[in-house]
Amino acid sequence: MAQQERSTRTRRKIVEAGGAVFAQRGFEGAVISDVYAKVGVTRGAFYYHFSSKEDLAEAVLETQRGGEQYPLIPREIKLQEFVDAGMVFTVRLRKDRLLQGSVRLAVEKASHSLDRSKAFEAWVTHNMRGLTEARERGELHPHVQLDDVAVMIAGAYTGIQLMSEVMDDRRDVERRVSVFLQHVMPTIALPGILARLDMAADRGERVMAELEELGELGEQGANGTSLAP
Amino acid sequence: MAQQERSTRTRRKIVEAGGAVFAQRGFEGAVISDVYAKVGVTRGAFYYHFSSKEDLAEAVLETQRGGEQYPLIPREIKLQEFVDAGMVFTVRLRKDRLLQGSVRLAVEKASHSLDRSKAFEAWVTHNMRGLTEARERGELHPHVQLDDVAVMIAGAYTGIQLMSEVMDDRRDVERRVSVFLQHVMPTIALPGILARLDMAADRGERVMAELEELGELGEQGANGTSLAP
Repeated sequence: MAQQERSTRTRRKIVEAGGAVFAQRGFEGAVISDVYAKVGVTRGAFYYHFSSKEDLAEAVLETQRGGEQYPLIPREIKLQEFVDAGMVFTVRLRKDRLLQGSVRLAVEKASHSLDRSKAFEAWVTHNMRGLTEARERGELHPHVQLDDVAVMIAGAYTGIQLMSEVMDDRRDVERRVSVFLQHVMPTIALPGILARLDMAADRGERVMAELEELGELGEQGANGTSLAP
Repeated sequence: MAQQERSTRTRRKIVEAGGAVFAQRGFEGAVISDVYAKVGVTRGAFYYHFSSKEDLAEAVLETQRGGEQYPLIPREIKLQEFVDAGMVFTVRLRKDRLLQGSVRLAVEKASHSLDRSKAFEAWVTHNMRGLTEARERGELHPHVQLDDVAVMIAGAYTGIQLMSEVMDDRRDVERRVSVFLQHVMPTIALPGILARLDMAADRGERVMAELEELGELGEQGANGTSLAP
């Protein structure tokens, strides 16, 4: 393995360990030495990659990227792709400590000076892209204000997964997201589209299985982690 | 003023100051001496009422009570009362530091051992009550699963106000909540009810003005604070 490749790999491992530590302790509670001990690298190796806890938090926060880094399977109905992206992200969020840490950093105010709004903006951009494609295919009610809906879905999703974490450690997060989609999609999608839209709670797991069969899940596969290779 | 009354008043002031400090600094960052300095009482007076920061946080968290403590105006349509409760709470949340602190304690994990799920459960109970009344009046689609919807609305609302706080310090939180209601109510309310439902962004302010005219806002009135007298 070349020097460069090894360095990239170490950096990725530090980000993953950082995500897990932030997920568990939040920004204030996280201790850098726990992170590099977890990865099995020295303090020096850590500071070669990151200048501070804040710097690491920024890298963890950025991994969300509105879920755009994950592979998806093209569907005839664009709105199904949008639903699939959300449901697959939800499965990943339930399993992946790095994503959990990233979401916690976005949700909690802390003493860092990171711009948490960037994480939300990435989700709004993701939602706008999906909804715009659906509109171009004629799948949406003509009165739907895409920007309002994109923001509303990002906010509502944030709270639904948060409440699921508080109530049952995200065990039923997919069901909760499914209930939400089933209650907003009728005001967004045309009836003919709605009738064919799969928003079931197990949709995410089924799409993950499809992706795995296609060999698209990358090195860590369906166990849910983490950064695309 | 009798001793008992004075004591109750002091306690209430400490809770309000505590809410403001938790809103600004979160649980970890909050310092007890800031709280009692804000109220203008001694350390001794503080510890007469609360045994610890955690004890104070519990009192602040409890003030949410699913918004049930606020007066409301009866309406012909029960679902309008439910919408009004949500919109009035949203106006209060934008203005009231105590509520903001309470919501922050519910949203953020911290080193305390408080049960944050109680705050969410109070909202689910509130939502269930409103939706059950609406169902009894025949205002809802027969297929609506009240418990699913009650949980979904609590979660979605949490995230929508949180995202509004991150993006613009809750300046447009009422508009965001209005967009959400306009996108879920069509799947919940029958068309004849929906056509008469007022879910506009300024609904909360208008109901507050009505309440003020009726003299129902308590000692601190429409400025938004705080505990019912």
